[in-house]
Amino acid sequence: MQTDELAERICKGERRALARAITLVESGRADHREQAQALLDRLTRAPGQALRIGLSGTPGVGKSTFIESFGMMLTGQGHKVAVLAVDPSSARSGGSILGDKTRMEHLSRDPNAFIRPSPSQSALGGVARRTREAVALCEAAGFDIVLIETVGVGQSETMVAEMTDLFILLMAPAGGDELQGVKRGIMEMADLILVNKADGDLKPAAERTRADYAGALRLLRRRPQDPEDFPKAICVSAVARSGLDQAWQEMQTLADWRRDHSHFDRRRAEQARYWFGEEVRRGLLARLEEDAEARARMATLGEQVAKGDLTVARATAQMLATLGVHR
Amino acid sequence: MQTDELAERICKGERRALARAITLVESGRADHREQAQALLDRLTRAPGQALRIGLSGTPGVGKSTFIESFGMMLTGQGHKVAVLAVDPSSARSGGSILGDKTRMEHLSRDPNAFIRPSPSQSALGGVARRTREAVALCEAAGFDIVLIETVGVGQSETMVAEMTDLFILLMAPAGGDELQGVKRGIMEMADLILVNKADGDLKPAAERTRADYAGALRLLRRRPQDPEDFPKAICVSAVARSGLDQAWQEMQTLADWRRDHSHFDRRRAEQARYWFGEEVRRGLLARLEEDAEARARMATLGEQVAKGDLTVARATAQMLATLGVHR
Repeated sequence: MQTDELAERICKGERRALARAITLVESGRADHREQAQALLDRLTRAPGQALRIGLSGTPGVGKSTFIESFGMMLTGQGHKVAVLAVDPSSARSGGSILGDKTRMEHLSRDPNAFIRPSPSQSALGGVARRTREAVALCEAAGFDIVLIETVGVGQSETMVAEMTDLFILLMAPAGGDELQGVKRGIMEMADLILVNKADGDLKPAAERTRADYAGALRLLRRRPQDPEDFPKAICVSAVARSGLDQAWQEMQTLADWRRDHSHFDRRRAEQARYWFGEEVRRGLLARLEEDAEARARMATLGEQVAKGDLTVARATAQMLATLGVHR
Repeated sequence: MQTDELAERICKGERRALARAITLVESGRADHREQAQALLDRLTRAPGQALRIGLSGTPGVGKSTFIESFGMMLTGQGHKVAVLAVDPSSARSGGSILGDKTRMEHLSRDPNAFIRPSPSQSALGGVARRTREAVALCEAAGFDIVLIETVGVGQSETMVAEMTDLFILLMAPAGGDELQGVKRGIMEMADLILVNKADGDLKPAAERTRADYAGALRLLRRRPQDPEDFPKAICVSAVARSGLDQAWQEMQTLADWRRDHSHFDRRRAEQARYWFGEEVRRGLLARLEEDAEARARMATLGEQVAKGDLTVARATAQMLATLGVHR
C-alpha cells in the first residue's frame, strides 16, 4: 500500500490500516523506517488532540480487567479508545503479553476501541520512540483517548509519564507494610491513585489502603500548577464496575484545569523537547554500538586499558578522535 | 615546576608535590589538563598497588571520627594512608566540606597520612575522572591504602564502588524502621557493614542493628566469588576505638581471598574498561553542551519541536547530521 493511501485510510479511522502503520513504526528495517517517517510527517500536520493517559500497576492489581471495564464505559459514552502496552519485560521474553486481547474480551471486539499489545524486541529507548509514534498514529485515526499501560518494571513508568497528559497508578488493597514498597519516585509521578478491588470482602481493606495512599500523597508534595486536592486517591472496582465514572470525572477535572491554566500544552511542548534531547543523545551513543568499526576500536582500546597499557584518559582521547570528536 | 620534577617529588612521597599534582588534575584549564596527563602517563607506568577502600555513610554516622581513628590505627601499623573525599553536594554549595581536616585533627598532622577534601565545582562525571586520577597519584606517592569517602547522595556510591577494591558502609545504630530506609542497591554494593557508635548506652542498639543488617545481607545475595560469610556486618566504635582492628582484619581477609582467586585484578580490569566506556560516552555527549554551535542548533530545533512544527524524528535526524552522524 502506498503511504498516501495508508494515511487516508488511517484518517478514516480504519483499524486495519492503523495496525499496519504501527507495524511499520515498530519495524527496524530501513525502508520501513523511511515509510513510517513519511507517514508521520503527513499525519502529524493536523494532530488530533487525544487525552493521553498513562496507567501503571504491578501484575495482579487487575490492570486488564480495569482497562476492559473502563474502556467499555468510555466507548459507551461515545469515546474512541486506543490502548497501547509498554512492557519492557516482553522485550526480554521475546514476545508480546500473551492474551492481552483475550483478557479484554469485550473491549477488543468493540469497534470504537483499538488494542495493541506490547511488541517484542529492542531496548527501552526504542520502545519510547515506537510508542510515541504509535500514539500519534492513534490520534490521527481519530481516537480521542489513548491509554498507555505499563507494568511497574524499571524505568518504564518514567518513560510513560513523559509521554502522557495524566499518569494513573492502579493499586491493590494492601497492608500498611506493603505501602512502603511503592517507590517514592512513582508516587511522585501519580496524578491519581486508583485502589482497585474495592468490592466484597476487600472493600474495608481497599478503603484503608486508599486513606494510606491519600496520606502519603499529601506528604509528598502538591504540584503548584494543579488544584489543591490533587493528586488524589480513590477506590474503584473493575469487576463490580464501581467508581469508574468517578475516576473518569477526576481525570477530566484535572485535564480541564490544566488546559484552562495553559499547563496542558506547555507540558506537551516540554515533553516534545525532552524526547528530542533524548533521541539526539541516543543517536550519538548509538554509533558505539551500531558502527562495526567503532565497536572494534572500543574493544581493542578497552583491552589495552584493562591490561594497564593505556590510561583511561589517553584511550578516551584516541577513541573520540576516531569518532571525529576533538576536544 | 616541570612535570619531570613534580613526578620525581611525588615518587619520593612529598605530600606538597602530591597536593599540587591533585590540584592540576582538578583544574579545568586546558594547559593544566595537558600537564596532568603527561604526569599521569609518567607515573602510571609503574603503578603502585594500594588497597582502594570506598567508605560511604550518611551525615551523622561518625564518618570523620571513624576515618580519624581507623587511619591513625593504620599509620600506627606502618601503613601510609591517603583519604580522598567525594561529595557531590559540595559541588552545589560551591565549596569543600568545611573542617574536613580539622575534624581529623590527629590524622591530618600525621606524616604518613594525606587528606584531600572534596573539591568544589563540576558534575559527577568530572568528579569521577578527577578522583580516579587522584587515586593514581596517591599510589605513585607510595600510599598503600587509599580511602575514598562519600556521603550517601545520589549516584556517588555507585561511582565510588566502581573505583575501589572494597566498599564499606558505615551505619549508626537504628530502630527496625530505619533499616528499611537504606537503599537496596547500596546494601548490595557493600562488602562490609560497620555499625558505628557501639559504645556506652548505644551498645545494645548497635548490636541489634548489626544483627538486622547481617540478616538483610544474607537475604540479599552472596557473591559467588567471595568467601561464604561475606558480605558481613560488625560493630565498631570510632570514639572508643574498638572493633577497628577486626574491621581491618575483615577487609584484609576479603582482599587476600580475592587476590588469591584472581578476582582482585579482574575487578580492576573491569573497572578500567567501565570507566573507559563512560568517558567515551561522556565525551560524545559533551559536544551538545560544550560546542556553542551545537547548543544553539539544539535550542532552535527544540523550539520547532515544542511548537509542533517539526517531528522529533526529523529534528533528531537534522541535529545528528549537523554533528556529522548519518544514520
